Amino acid sequence: MVPADTPVLRADDLGVLRGDGVFETMHVRPDGRGGVQPWLLDEHLARMARSAARMELALPAEAALRELAALACAQWPAEVEGALRLTCTRGPEASAASGGPVTCFASLNPIGAATLAARRDGITVTTISLGYPADARTSAPWLLGGVKSLSYAINMASQRWALAQGADDALWVSQDGYALEGPTSTLAWLDGDVLCTVPVEPTGILPGTTARHLLDHAADLGWTAAERMVTPAGLAAADGVWLLSSVRGVAELRSIDGVASAPSAHTGNLLGYLGFPSLGY
Amino acid sequence: MVPADTPVLRADDLGVLRGDGVFETMHVRPDGRGGVQPWLLDEHLARMARSAARMELALPAEAALRELAALACAQWPAEVEGALRLTCTRGPEASAASGGPVTCFASLNPIGAATLAARRDGITVTTISLGYPADARTSAPWLLGGVKSLSYAINMASQRWALAQGADDALWVSQDGYALEGPTSTLAWLDGDVLCTVPVEPTGILPGTTARHLLDHAADLGWTAAERMVTPAGLAAADGVWLLSSVRGVAELRSIDGVASAPSAHTGNLLGYLGFPSLGY
Repeated sequence: MVPADTPVLRADDLGVLRGDGVFETMHVRPDGRGGVQPWLLDEHLARMARSAARMELALPAEAALRELAALACAQWPAEVEGALRLTCTRGPEASAASGGPVTCFASLNPIGAATLAARRDGITVTTISLGYPADARTSAPWLLGGVKSLSYAINMASQRWALAQGADDALWVSQDGYALEGPTSTLAWLDGDVLCTVPVEPTGILPGTTARHLLDHAADLGWTAAERMVTPAGLAAADGVWLLSSVRGVAELRSIDGVASAPSAHTGNLLGYLGFPSLGY
Repeated sequence: MVPADTPVLRADDLGVLRGDGVFETMHVRPDGRGGVQPWLLDEHLARMARSAARMELALPAEAALRELAALACAQWPAEVEGALRLTCTRGPEASAASGGPVTCFASLNPIGAATLAARRDGITVTTISLGYPADARTSAPWLLGGVKSLSYAINMASQRWALAQGADDALWVSQDGYALEGPTSTLAWLDGDVLCTVPVEPTGILPGTTARHLLDHAADLGWTAAERMVTPAGLAAADGVWLLSSVRGVAELRSIDGVASAPSAHTGNLLGYLGFPSLGY
């Protein structure tokens, strides 16, 4: 690991010139042997590989990415929750044009107080349109549906907008009125004993690793799993609504567009099942 | 100027973590006093200021940006066309959170052979949907319509897609069928003696500096100027169709979706009027 204040990126790296690269962020937690490890590393590396393939970006061998992650985790104290980020950019412009190597680096940071508070207390969201109809990215691979690229300016602007409206986060809806995802999270909700999320097809949302893991193990919680389209009004009738993400983990939606809902009895169970301490280790 | 291979960006700079920043690219040409200067510098700095304001990004004083540009140009040979890029990112994550300074840098590079060929020979384009209806970004400032951010992954993927289809560039159309802009250029066309471009409102396209300059001076070429919505089919009836941008300058569309058009008699005049040598200086 290089110190965080040491420059590692050239001014001509396409990662910064064009937001041209991919990333993954993982929750770093105790490995049970006195150290720490990134949770769901295999799944994150698989998603990074899919993102890179859709951007025609040649990643280094997976072993090299695992080594970057392991090096970052090696000195991390087991009692501190961490957020590990792996970033791979297309590299300097001239070398990328001639098929040169991508630029990859890892960073590991502690988790902020606001993130822990969101787990414990839930969040309020404001719905904002993502502009697209729900199926706009079907058969349009250049729109990078399902790709976790470095081009997150709209994601960040959406969260700034939500904060300015007094909410904690945004929930993107399609131009035709379906709830899609958060700018940095996946939507999930409980309808009776069916745990639901939004289908990646046709919406082009990012396939969430935490949501996938949870739905794949819904039976452990006594539920079945389903992928459904839903509207914000439909969410109001759910038995619990959450935004799932790798580091924040589970954030219960306590209010959508100012309409508050009763706390779900399931949020604590979800956090516990997924191994997220609501107040840090 | 630092050498291009010296790292200048920290791994935690939001420019690369989130494509969170703004940029401008300018054509560097002789200043008539033996040196070179960026063309339309005032207009580019004004657009960068508008982009930054919409992203709530606090740029340094304009004088500092002018100084960066001047330093980059100081040693440039007058006989070589250049592309000057100014980049400002939100800076390292932790310092940005506490209102720290943005990261700004300039780079100046020669212009590639493909760019010069596009001026001389024109280009072929394939139309692809941008997914949005033409007015989707109206009243949705979080979608960053009109903002030149670093988040260009979709722009780059669109151009890669066009190249894979055998075209030289892409022309984005709205979900409801209007021609909007190129991923890195502004659409302009001649209808009789009216020089047209696409209105920034309601489309949310990037306001092109070259197109604005040209339309503002249309009378010098014996034309009037207008902003109009147009379809790809409508472009087929034009007396010339161009993609305008700061470095490539003027690229005539010689074919749209495989339908070729006769060369426009006006392209050479446009290049000359705007000061772009079709074969370099």
